[in-house]
Amino acid sequence: MEGRDVVVINQPLLPHRFEILRLKNHRQTADAIKTMIIRGAGTIGATAGYGFAQAWLEGADLDEAYQTLVTTRPTAADLKHALDRVRANATNAKQAVAVAEAIADEYVERALKIAKAGLPLIKNGSRVLTHCNAGWLALEDWGSATAPIYLAHRKGRKVFVWVDETRPRCQGANLTSWELLQEGVPHKIIPDNAAGFFMRRGEIDLCIVGADRIAANGDAANKVGTYTKAVLARENGIPFYVAAPAPTFDMKCKSGDSIPIEERSEDEVHYVSGCTERGKIERVRISHPDARAANPAFDVTSAKYITGFITEFGIIKPGEVKKRFSK
Amino acid sequence: MEGRDVVVINQPLLPHRFEILRLKNHRQTADAIKTMIIRGAGTIGATAGYGFAQAWLEGADLDEAYQTLVTTRPTAADLKHALDRVRANATNAKQAVAVAEAIADEYVERALKIAKAGLPLIKNGSRVLTHCNAGWLALEDWGSATAPIYLAHRKGRKVFVWVDETRPRCQGANLTSWELLQEGVPHKIIPDNAAGFFMRRGEIDLCIVGADRIAANGDAANKVGTYTKAVLARENGIPFYVAAPAPTFDMKCKSGDSIPIEERSEDEVHYVSGCTERGKIERVRISHPDARAANPAFDVTSAKYITGFITEFGIIKPGEVKKRFSK
Repeated sequence: MEGRDVVVINQPLLPHRFEILRLKNHRQTADAIKTMIIRGAGTIGATAGYGFAQAWLEGADLDEAYQTLVTTRPTAADLKHALDRVRANATNAKQAVAVAEAIADEYVERALKIAKAGLPLIKNGSRVLTHCNAGWLALEDWGSATAPIYLAHRKGRKVFVWVDETRPRCQGANLTSWELLQEGVPHKIIPDNAAGFFMRRGEIDLCIVGADRIAANGDAANKVGTYTKAVLARENGIPFYVAAPAPTFDMKCKSGDSIPIEERSEDEVHYVSGCTERGKIERVRISHPDARAANPAFDVTSAKYITGFITEFGIIKPGEVKKRFSK
Repeated sequence: MEGRDVVVINQPLLPHRFEILRLKNHRQTADAIKTMIIRGAGTIGATAGYGFAQAWLEGADLDEAYQTLVTTRPTAADLKHALDRVRANATNAKQAVAVAEAIADEYVERALKIAKAGLPLIKNGSRVLTHCNAGWLALEDWGSATAPIYLAHRKGRKVFVWVDETRPRCQGANLTSWELLQEGVPHKIIPDNAAGFFMRRGEIDLCIVGADRIAANGDAANKVGTYTKAVLARENGIPFYVAAPAPTFDMKCKSGDSIPIEERSEDEVHYVSGCTERGKIERVRISHPDARAANPAFDVTSAKYITGFITEFGIIKPGEVKKRFSK
């Protein structure tokens, strides 16, 4: 936050253009979350906290601002967690900003702890599959799924990442690959369809993904396609880890069945955005104008497919989630 | 075939533009197969037969022409089948054209028989998932996977199709959806990542896909991602059928391990082709110019995941393939 502005990376322009965006008020911040200018569990949480602090600074109706912000992304647990925390701990604008800053700072610490907790999983030569973007664009400064990878890489271990392109919004091809290029981590983008091929060929040693909400029984909601990779991993005897900080665990959800799944516009399926030969960012339609599409943004991976959760408290088995995160 | 020209639909322009292309000689025909101007097991077979007949008409070196044609798509069994048949049965150009025409005509008959064999699988109200395009663009006049669907639809049964978009080349979004629109069959395109979501929610009753080569033990190679859907189907108790005519069965391959898997250009992953707002067909790059990608075009689905093969001889269990198709 700079003054009253929330300052973010305009993620939909990546990897083609790096642009910083200033969100001037809580409505702009809510819009940025809703339209996925920023996305990723931790970044949504941190940004929502700041957005609520903006509402305080604006002297806006706080209940209305809370509603505006909390309804932007129904599946994200970190969103409500951050808003509730600002609401519970601030009695004036200055405090609200301080709480929001504390939330953002803690995310940075949580990410580093996740990196350390997951580090032993990354052996020298490990080939890791990840889905969507759970990198530092999604959780400062390390990401969740990428945190152990980045730490292993900095420690000089050889690590290779298979990056699911992650249709429909291609966060893997757009964001994770771009991050890995910045970090110098060897990787290849693959169509979501090809993950099974490489698992079957024995070219994937483990999977690490992020999460948007984790239920008390260890079921985890994450970007659509995660369930598929988890089923494939189990079928091929490959460990499947979910990396997430504490605010992603929602003990009010008993199981994955009670996690709301956001359905987004079918245009995300019909159109693909990218860079033209002339260097312009443009979208092209891949389907006929009369075609219809369905676009569930997330899916639920049952606890039985998850080897463990990589958290700031170490690696936790799905069966231990309830005990660990209940007050 | 018209005169010496092979006349085909320019498939990469669909669904945005319908254009007929005249392939003037066997080299142009080989190029059209290689660059996927035409694709789909049956259409590759029929077109290859005509291409070889062109070589006869041109007075070209026949061994060279055979090599040019047979190496265009390494995974496709129908390709070699058609070329071998023309080679074995023609001693002059006129005969070569006649054999090629017989191959193409037989594909039409085979497709209708597949439609009839698969019809009992499509109950009133069935919701079918298909992957890639195994419609009439891939096998005249009914397709393979779509054949029972089209026949059921014409008989007045209610049938709904979930269409995997099928990255990287989006044959589902581009071709299958367009075909289904022509036929008036209700359907929705979904990201490849979402098939698991809909299976888990109980919204898919059965899967039908095509194949590019089927081994003696019942393992089937088809468009990359097929293996994934088959694993998901078994996990969710959903029947998984592979529809294919006899020339796709290759008894020289003992198992899926001996089916060669074509690796195509990584640019198919980096770029997506579609229609701009100005109505121009253009490609956009989704990844950073420095990013690398991997692009296996097919994968192998083990026989154990396949409920049955829908063929012109009826529905055959994977364990019966060898007996049925060995001479």
